[in-house]
Amino acid sequence: MERHFDEELETLYKDILKMGVMAQEAIFKSIEALKNRDKHGAQEVINTDSKIDNLELLIDEKCIDLIARHQPMAKDLRFITTGMKINAELERIADLAVDISQRVLELVDKPILKPLIDIPKLSVIAQNMVHDAIDAFVKKDVDLAKKVVLSDSEADKLRDLVQDELINDYMAKDPSTAPRAVALLLIARHLERICDHTTNIAEDVIYMVQGKVIKHHLEKLD
Amino acid sequence: MERHFDEELETLYKDILKMGVMAQEAIFKSIEALKNRDKHGAQEVINTDSKIDNLELLIDEKCIDLIARHQPMAKDLRFITTGMKINAELERIADLAVDISQRVLELVDKPILKPLIDIPKLSVIAQNMVHDAIDAFVKKDVDLAKKVVLSDSEADKLRDLVQDELINDYMAKDPSTAPRAVALLLIARHLERICDHTTNIAEDVIYMVQGKVIKHHLEKLD
Repeated sequence: MERHFDEELETLYKDILKMGVMAQEAIFKSIEALKNRDKHGAQEVINTDSKIDNLELLIDEKCIDLIARHQPMAKDLRFITTGMKINAELERIADLAVDISQRVLELVDKPILKPLIDIPKLSVIAQNMVHDAIDAFVKKDVDLAKKVVLSDSEADKLRDLVQDELINDYMAKDPSTAPRAVALLLIARHLERICDHTTNIAEDVIYMVQGKVIKHHLEKLD
Repeated sequence: MERHFDEELETLYKDILKMGVMAQEAIFKSIEALKNRDKHGAQEVINTDSKIDNLELLIDEKCIDLIARHQPMAKDLRFITTGMKINAELERIADLAVDISQRVLELVDKPILKPLIDIPKLSVIAQNMVHDAIDAFVKKDVDLAKKVVLSDSEADKLRDLVQDELINDYMAKDPSTAPRAVALLLIARHLERICDHTTNIAEDVIYMVQGKVIKHHLEKLD
């Protein structure tokens, strides 16, 4: 019985890892589609989302089932409920990659507005944050999780930079750029929201390991 | 022991209700602040958010503690894990009211761009959806929860309407309106995202009562 439970926990672990990889891929592919003006690539991200949705439901069911059948005590219970939260965050991250892809579909038939520099940078930050947050979960690595939390302010700054440039240098100078500039501005915001969800994951990992609430209390990090 | 557990469940119930009321109030006050160009009101929504964050943490702890101490079976366990999810959604809804309030602070010192019609409408839809979703949870009312899910498309349409108007009638005609138009556009998007989170709550309620997955499968609603 005990061994069986450990095996089921291990499977849960792997499922969440898989979910993380799928979410990361969705971000990567949506920004590749943006860079390459690739309608097909953007559509693929949108189509793949149902697989991620199904995996989310599967993981959620497994968690509740595990709790109901094994009635785990404190440490394991905390691991499983953290898994449920991470699972939900990853599903939302994938949803935001879909949002990005929808903006790409709006942009792809219109002339290029500007060379993309900061948005791909923001995308790399987002992907690294997702990678590190999941890694921190797997390794129960609090330091890595804290690093993820601190990266979020970098993402905030980059989003503000993109937004200010698009408003002041494009929309405000040439009104015909407005629809394209708004689409790019929203992509930057979608990416930054991915970073927010990833920060939630990192905070959940810290709480799982340390039982210390840093959620909503960033100042207590150090 | 059994009676004690029921009492604790009842308290959990009331805490989630309270969280719902606080989230609704935050939406209402943020849009009132927008309508009345009320810097103080917007700041109040931002300041109150830490109370909502603390309540979220408290509810989350209570849920895990309830599971750990009482090891509830299927039905009660499902109720508690649903409570955890609803709790997280409500915290995010309150966060979005903070986002709206930040946009209000950006707008408040600038000239009025346009009379507000559709954004207050969208806000009423959002508040009603939150109210009905929590009511559906309290009463375990699947029909009401389904109504909430179906309202979301109305919110989507209204957001698109606001966005198209701001881009085509303001930004594209008069570039000097861009910063204000972007702020209003984001407010419409924040409100629509509140409706998305509320839809998640309604879907969770349906699943809790019926054990039927409609999440990600809207077509199966009827």
